[in-house]
Amino acid sequence: MPSKKSEKAILIVCDGIGDRPIPTLKGKTPLEAATKPTLDKLAAKGATGLLHVLSPGIPPGSDTGHLSLFGYDPRDCYTGRGPFEALGAGLDLKPTDVAFRGNFATVKVSGDDSFEVLDRRAGRNLPEGRKLAKLINGLKLPNHPEVEVIVGHTVEHRCVVVLRGKNLSSAISDTDPHGFSDSVLAATPLDDSKEAKRTAQIINEFTREVHRILSKSPINSSRKKAGQLEANIVLVRGAGVLPVIPPLKTMFGISAACVAGGALYKGVARSVGMEILTVPGATATYDTDVEAKARATAKALETHDFVFLHFKPTDSAAHDKNPKKKMEMVEKFDHMVATLLPLIDMDYTHIAITGDHTTSSTNGKHTGNPVPLLLVGHAVRNDDVKEFSERACAKGGLGHLLGMAVMPLLMSYLDRSPMFGA
Amino acid sequence: MPSKKSEKAILIVCDGIGDRPIPTLKGKTPLEAATKPTLDKLAAKGATGLLHVLSPGIPPGSDTGHLSLFGYDPRDCYTGRGPFEALGAGLDLKPTDVAFRGNFATVKVSGDDSFEVLDRRAGRNLPEGRKLAKLINGLKLPNHPEVEVIVGHTVEHRCVVVLRGKNLSSAISDTDPHGFSDSVLAATPLDDSKEAKRTAQIINEFTREVHRILSKSPINSSRKKAGQLEANIVLVRGAGVLPVIPPLKTMFGISAACVAGGALYKGVARSVGMEILTVPGATATYDTDVEAKARATAKALETHDFVFLHFKPTDSAAHDKNPKKKMEMVEKFDHMVATLLPLIDMDYTHIAITGDHTTSSTNGKHTGNPVPLLLVGHAVRNDDVKEFSERACAKGGLGHLLGMAVMPLLMSYLDRSPMFGA
Repeated sequence: MPSKKSEKAILIVCDGIGDRPIPTLKGKTPLEAATKPTLDKLAAKGATGLLHVLSPGIPPGSDTGHLSLFGYDPRDCYTGRGPFEALGAGLDLKPTDVAFRGNFATVKVSGDDSFEVLDRRAGRNLPEGRKLAKLINGLKLPNHPEVEVIVGHTVEHRCVVVLRGKNLSSAISDTDPHGFSDSVLAATPLDDSKEAKRTAQIINEFTREVHRILSKSPINSSRKKAGQLEANIVLVRGAGVLPVIPPLKTMFGISAACVAGGALYKGVARSVGMEILTVPGATATYDTDVEAKARATAKALETHDFVFLHFKPTDSAAHDKNPKKKMEMVEKFDHMVATLLPLIDMDYTHIAITGDHTTSSTNGKHTGNPVPLLLVGHAVRNDDVKEFSERACAKGGLGHLLGMAVMPLLMSYLDRSPMFGA
Repeated sequence: MPSKKSEKAILIVCDGIGDRPIPTLKGKTPLEAATKPTLDKLAAKGATGLLHVLSPGIPPGSDTGHLSLFGYDPRDCYTGRGPFEALGAGLDLKPTDVAFRGNFATVKVSGDDSFEVLDRRAGRNLPEGRKLAKLINGLKLPNHPEVEVIVGHTVEHRCVVVLRGKNLSSAISDTDPHGFSDSVLAATPLDDSKEAKRTAQIINEFTREVHRILSKSPINSSRKKAGQLEANIVLVRGAGVLPVIPPLKTMFGISAACVAGGALYKGVARSVGMEILTVPGATATYDTDVEAKARATAKALETHDFVFLHFKPTDSAAHDKNPKKKMEMVEKFDHMVATLLPLIDMDYTHIAITGDHTTSSTNGKHTGNPVPLLLVGHAVRNDDVKEFSERACAKGGLGHLLGMAVMPLLMSYLDRSPMFGA
């Protein structure tokens, strides 16, 4: 098809879309049980397949799943979730920074001088989060004054922690006990390097200093008086350094934009060079404004070659072990795609629709089962699958692929995938 | 089936066979739109699948595509196109040689002492090519007299250039501007090695010396008088060293022969140890004599275990953006296979038919879409696909494979694929 306009692409990720057969849905998955006329119409027009986002049977994380969907091998470049959270929170990272996801939490000092965890989320609702982060942002560690400590608040009890300085390592364990222990854990080095040993010491000092500062904060005195849990410590997890990877511009010569509500997704998108668009109403929660997201996507396509559009609530419903809610959220996702389609010119646009992983509505966890994949556009060899679902797409003409194949395939339709050889 | 005769195999490559849906062919691909009774009959008898020749979405070059089909991973062994062109031109290469594809071209010296390219192909028709190559073959570079310079002519404006000596590197950029610049480019090192820096200097000296010698050649005076473009420089590209790979004889214990028209395909075949057969009429152009090629293949099978039979015109038609011509060339390919079948004993022969890449008749380029694969022979578990085409083979019993799988699978039917393990 000769084109005067340039060819565009959209990657739409329905988070946690895959599922297992649900007895209360007569053995169907939430996706199979949902009414989704737009997705089925696109399946009938395009080609389908199944995607092992990492590799068969391996449950992807949200970060590694998206890295794969963007065309990068997490086994080569992934060190931890921290840097994506930090980028998503709007912080800028240097290559030598070590970043962590953090939780404001509630602890009491127990007899043996360890911290007993009363609530990993300090009650979750934490309107003072930003002020608390400011109290500890830039704190000087007495034994490591040369290390810069950056703390940024995101939402509710969530924050990011960045250590900046020389000779730091991300090979250290979490202080967050994740519910497996009653106490705040001591960070330990995960390899034999001096750097890992030192960074573990720094984080353990950070834990004590943060507790010292927050314990005497008037904010916590007020919370205590009001019968609320004190937010008197920060638990860290997911230590990582920014992946050293070429941006999408280098990989495929494209300008890329991201329409997402959640910080982590924005962070992974930033790490591969996407411009993060601010869309009022895109909340990543059940009430996210999908029409606003669809309109923002169509608008972004006027100025970018590629847009990544992320939809979170399907995953949240599965984590909440609520298959009916997930079904309802699939229908909301279908409405988002239905809103988008009339706003774009399909003569010049290729679309990929898939998920970053399966999230089981039964156990509330990411699982290693594949997710459906749909590609549609004028250069796509369509197949005879007429339904967008796990079992229908298993028979599709795209076959069963790895997550890393999505971007090269999508970019190939735009003649943006670089040839190897001559 | 017990055999007194030995089992044989043929790999038939229909170059650039895959395509995209073509509006003027009612959304079919040229392969789907063509009448190809022989290929469809073989599909009905055998098993089919789809082949990602390199990996999903990555457009293969002609060289890397064939290396993969022969069972070698180009990511491990490929450095550039040059050595395959040189081997295909009949030159012998040493492991330390650096080889280039060359073009005789027309330049004029511009004000700033650079070479302005007037024609990258010196008018393409160059009957004096062999004489011009002789003029510069063996030239001594004043600053690098220790380096042996070998220049061989192939056809029209095409030649190969080999640098022979110590401490050379293939990690240097092209001097051929490929139409992206008006000037001959200076070769630059692509890594930090001394060898790359030195080789770039040598090639830049080669460029100047070749221009000096060719500019004063009587051949060019005559061409000028006749109103033809002077062939007064050589542009080089695709620097590479011979891949260090075991021959097919070592891999599978087979004697192998090649029936092909194009130099590049012969070169890749030579690099894996095939005997290159000379077949009068095998031109690699639209009028190539397919019956002669079929007869040569059958004859070669009497003295070899394996024959690689290459068919080029489908690719050429797609590069010419002519889907109707490609369809016609598919029919010519079908006729080649129809001619071959009665000449071989299918009780003792397995055949693989596939392509080295998709070439889009719409944009004239290699694309990252998969190609159909067909295996036929007495040991093949056949499937219910009855048509050799992209969409039909997507449902085939072989599934979707990587290009490197073809030779082990084919050799496995001959009990030639070595067991791994015990």
